[in-house]
Amino acid sequence: MKRREFLSGAGVASAGVALAAPAIAQGQQQGLPKVTWRLTSSFPTTLDIAYGGAETLARIVSEMTDGQFTIEIYPAGELTSPLENFAKVQEGWVDCAQTALHYHWGNEPALAFGTAVPFGMNARQQNAFFRQGGGTDLFNEILLDHKLYALPMGNTGSQMGGWFKNELRSVADFKGLKFRISGLAAKVLQKIGCVPQAVARADIASGFTNGTLDAAAWVSPYDDEKLELTKVAPWYYYPGWWQGSSAVHLLINLDGWNKLPRAYQSVLKIAAEFVNADVQARYDALNPAALKRLVESGARLRPFPPDVMDACWQAAFEVYNELAASDPKFKRVYEIYMSFRNDQYLWWQVAEYPYDNFIIRSRAKG
Amino acid sequence: MKRREFLSGAGVASAGVALAAPAIAQGQQQGLPKVTWRLTSSFPTTLDIAYGGAETLARIVSEMTDGQFTIEIYPAGELTSPLENFAKVQEGWVDCAQTALHYHWGNEPALAFGTAVPFGMNARQQNAFFRQGGGTDLFNEILLDHKLYALPMGNTGSQMGGWFKNELRSVADFKGLKFRISGLAAKVLQKIGCVPQAVARADIASGFTNGTLDAAAWVSPYDDEKLELTKVAPWYYYPGWWQGSSAVHLLINLDGWNKLPRAYQSVLKIAAEFVNADVQARYDALNPAALKRLVESGARLRPFPPDVMDACWQAAFEVYNELAASDPKFKRVYEIYMSFRNDQYLWWQVAEYPYDNFIIRSRAKG
Repeated sequence: MKRREFLSGAGVASAGVALAAPAIAQGQQQGLPKVTWRLTSSFPTTLDIAYGGAETLARIVSEMTDGQFTIEIYPAGELTSPLENFAKVQEGWVDCAQTALHYHWGNEPALAFGTAVPFGMNARQQNAFFRQGGGTDLFNEILLDHKLYALPMGNTGSQMGGWFKNELRSVADFKGLKFRISGLAAKVLQKIGCVPQAVARADIASGFTNGTLDAAAWVSPYDDEKLELTKVAPWYYYPGWWQGSSAVHLLINLDGWNKLPRAYQSVLKIAAEFVNADVQARYDALNPAALKRLVESGARLRPFPPDVMDACWQAAFEVYNELAASDPKFKRVYEIYMSFRNDQYLWWQVAEYPYDNFIIRSRAKG
Repeated sequence: MKRREFLSGAGVASAGVALAAPAIAQGQQQGLPKVTWRLTSSFPTTLDIAYGGAETLARIVSEMTDGQFTIEIYPAGELTSPLENFAKVQEGWVDCAQTALHYHWGNEPALAFGTAVPFGMNARQQNAFFRQGGGTDLFNEILLDHKLYALPMGNTGSQMGGWFKNELRSVADFKGLKFRISGLAAKVLQKIGCVPQAVARADIASGFTNGTLDAAAWVSPYDDEKLELTKVAPWYYYPGWWQGSSAVHLLINLDGWNKLPRAYQSVLKIAAEFVNADVQARYDALNPAALKRLVESGARLRPFPPDVMDACWQAAFEVYNELAASDPKFKRVYEIYMSFRNDQYLWWQVAEYPYDNFIIRSRAKG
């Protein structure tokens, strides 16, 4: 059920008229193939920055092609549910999905590295990895077996560690803690005694009052604010060490991708990169004010205690080693990813980090 | 002397043939206006990552328009010298320039904030400022008076502090120090006793042996390595507090911009943002290995002593206040810029910075 139309009858019929010089000078080009794609998002409209990336994509692709390549977008749940997007794009029921590759790590564990992993790269490093460290090619090599193709299309930057009902004094407080968290982070936290919970966004606030939840991770201040958790779970921890960077992707049906005219492939690639940067800039621009409002309304901002961070670091590498031992594809991506991360931090600690460090300290001194 | 041709005779003549269905299916569109622009770069080809951004721009703009919008690029010195690009684009002698806005701060002091300023934002924050903090609009408001229009198109990230003949033990060592440095940083360093020097790239190495120079700032490891300074000025300091982020721009003749079809304006905007991210990713990916090679070949990597950093911070804000007192436009941009920077670091110190901090410390522990 693809709605791709490479040549609309109308486009061909009116070509003679459109080629009159004045119409062309105004950029009303005819002869460009008419293409309409359907995009399903894994995000609800409440995640307006992330979901908004799909809206931006549709707008700029249409602008750049003078309205000839259009993308119809549908929020999570309208056409498909987030977790079935992998299969729905694969079978061509939709042309593409805006999604996080780690939602689909059940299909391919190595895809976790495409979104966010515990103690992974920060956002700028991850972008360098995608573009210049072979990252995008690596994930597309894995996706080839599933007849899929993916382009990075957004990032949240480092996320928060989440909302806790009670103060965390040490790693012992994680024993039996019912924490809304998923993916690799859930596996890591289980090792330190945590009990991961799968709870839909709409049920997070009530989870704290009905005893289902002791803690919940969502995104960062701008998105978190809408959950209104300061009354029920006021302890707001950082950093979200399992999502030091969290990438969004445009997941495309490979056959559909291959059938696109080359100019449109280029338009889509460049447009996705624009959205990649735009989503990051929106989070960066809007998080500071949201953080201020949250603190004013009662959020108690705290760093995770050092022994918690150390225990999670230890547990994370145990999880990595276990998965690498049982899955050669995971092992390969893990090694390439961590080698690039290590080099990135080697340089980061020389220029970027001391620069940020000095400004943060000097601002604190006033 | 513009070479813009909105309607090439050839394009119109062959339209009938090109509209045959198979040709269209292959993406061979006719009817798109033919446009050729000339771009002059302020960078030499030796700065291959920065200059390469112009090559990438030309390639992707051509790809996205199926070869109809082409950009001819010329390295620094071939058509124009870097400092005359402002005037040459203004008068339309070239359509656009790849340049750093702070090269032209003699024309408009406030333009310094468009590239890099002492203790300014880091690269991700600056991108958020350009896109979501009104930054790009603000610079274009200033450029409007000069009939120019600019789009961000590359970033180096935080740069190095440069190469020094002798070790720096304290701020007193800056007294009389002949330092190759320009712009706002030169004004700041003068306040602590430094003697800024204007020396061409080709004369830096010999400057150290003939006594003209005691120190020189260039870019970061990847570009610096080609200067081969480890023998003559082995002390390699960080961070480059005057370029915690350094943005490149595409500076466009406003009339030429306004005459572009809307689809091409969109193509150029989106393409420039692609290059913006791509240049950053290349620097990030290539700096780590260059840094390792430099250290192996004798570079002595050192942080600026704390009293040097503190004195420069102090001096920088004196310079800002002096310029703001005499130039209302500078004052306005300075206030908007610093207010955004302050909010950015407020949030940065909660999520990104502690995340990086923990990974750097944990890696050091092994």
